[in-house]
Amino acid sequence: MTKKGEAKAAPKARRTGGRSARVRAAVLAATVEELKIAGHHGLSIAAVAARAGVAETSIYRRWKTVEGLVAEARFALFSENIAVPDRGSLRADLIAFLSATGRFLQTPLGWAVITSSIATPSSPSYLREVHGLWNKRFLELQPIFARAVERGDWPETRDAQVAIETLIGGIYFRALVMRQKVRRSDVSAIVDLVLNHAETTDGQGGPR
Amino acid sequence: MTKKGEAKAAPKARRTGGRSARVRAAVLAATVEELKIAGHHGLSIAAVAARAGVAETSIYRRWKTVEGLVAEARFALFSENIAVPDRGSLRADLIAFLSATGRFLQTPLGWAVITSSIATPSSPSYLREVHGLWNKRFLELQPIFARAVERGDWPETRDAQVAIETLIGGIYFRALVMRQKVRRSDVSAIVDLVLNHAETTDGQGGPR
Repeated sequence: MTKKGEAKAAPKARRTGGRSARVRAAVLAATVEELKIAGHHGLSIAAVAARAGVAETSIYRRWKTVEGLVAEARFALFSENIAVPDRGSLRADLIAFLSATGRFLQTPLGWAVITSSIATPSSPSYLREVHGLWNKRFLELQPIFARAVERGDWPETRDAQVAIETLIGGIYFRALVMRQKVRRSDVSAIVDLVLNHAETTDGQGGPR
Repeated sequence: MTKKGEAKAAPKARRTGGRSARVRAAVLAATVEELKIAGHHGLSIAAVAARAGVAETSIYRRWKTVEGLVAEARFALFSENIAVPDRGSLRADLIAFLSATGRFLQTPLGWAVITSSIATPSSPSYLREVHGLWNKRFLELQPIFARAVERGDWPETRDAQVAIETLIGGIYFRALVMRQKVRRSDVSAIVDLVLNHAETTDGQGGPR
């Protein structure tokens, strides 16, 4: 599949990519740390650059907007704080994942990360960034449903994407909008609401 | 059921209540109008008082905090913009209600109302206010499920409260967090996800 010319160019490209990837990772890690300390509103690119040991221009070269960098750092915090579980059943996986989501949302850091994300205006570049990051996050969560399909816990014909969106939505709504505690019993009630339908054998339809 | 003394006191109490209720209603309507024009951040109590034709002190006497007044006005906007439908089936009712929710969220006013609500800090008085207002809103929505139980669309044993929270949550999550359009097909996918379970006859359980 690789043409000769490309193969020849590869070593140089890799070296460049390697350094670029290291800078990216350092800046992202520094942004995550700064978000933990300063929150979204206090975030300074100068502080991120100093912490990452790079020039500010290196940051602006790699991220088109500060919003884009911050959005990526927020998603890194999700992945860091909300593990993708493998507990042997779909119900156990979803309860573990959504409980961790609820717990993170109810920490000052999680609250700041999500509310500042919601408060960010919808510029076209921010929308592209957020859509890409959510797609990536959903890919991380896909194994939960892939394993469930293998075990027969979840009909392959069912839309796992809608299920995971709705489940996360239920947790966010309870914590952020209703301002209620997310208890273990709330999580299992939401999971059972959605999983019950998986009991139906055809996995289609509903009252029409 | 009414004692003589209470019956005697009623006319005066009604008169006082009447004026107080009129002032409340005028202030609330004025706040709704000001929210429409100025949004949450530009809201001035002086402007609300002028529009309602009352003294500012009349507002502070009736609402403990400005947040409380604004929260109540936001819920008035929900009720004004998101009707409680009666379309003859649970699926049709939920699709109509959630479509209206999605449409309102995607207007500049709806977006401002919800995001400023999420941005309001969780003071104890604000929490009490929001919990009370959501309880009231859920009471308004209850007929949807009460009629569904009568028709046999929804098993009485199922938790309608968890269902409505999760459904609204799915719409909010899509619009506010994922920053995706809420299309009619998204609404029906979320509704079908939740309604399928209602097909099960026992309405209990799920994979455990």
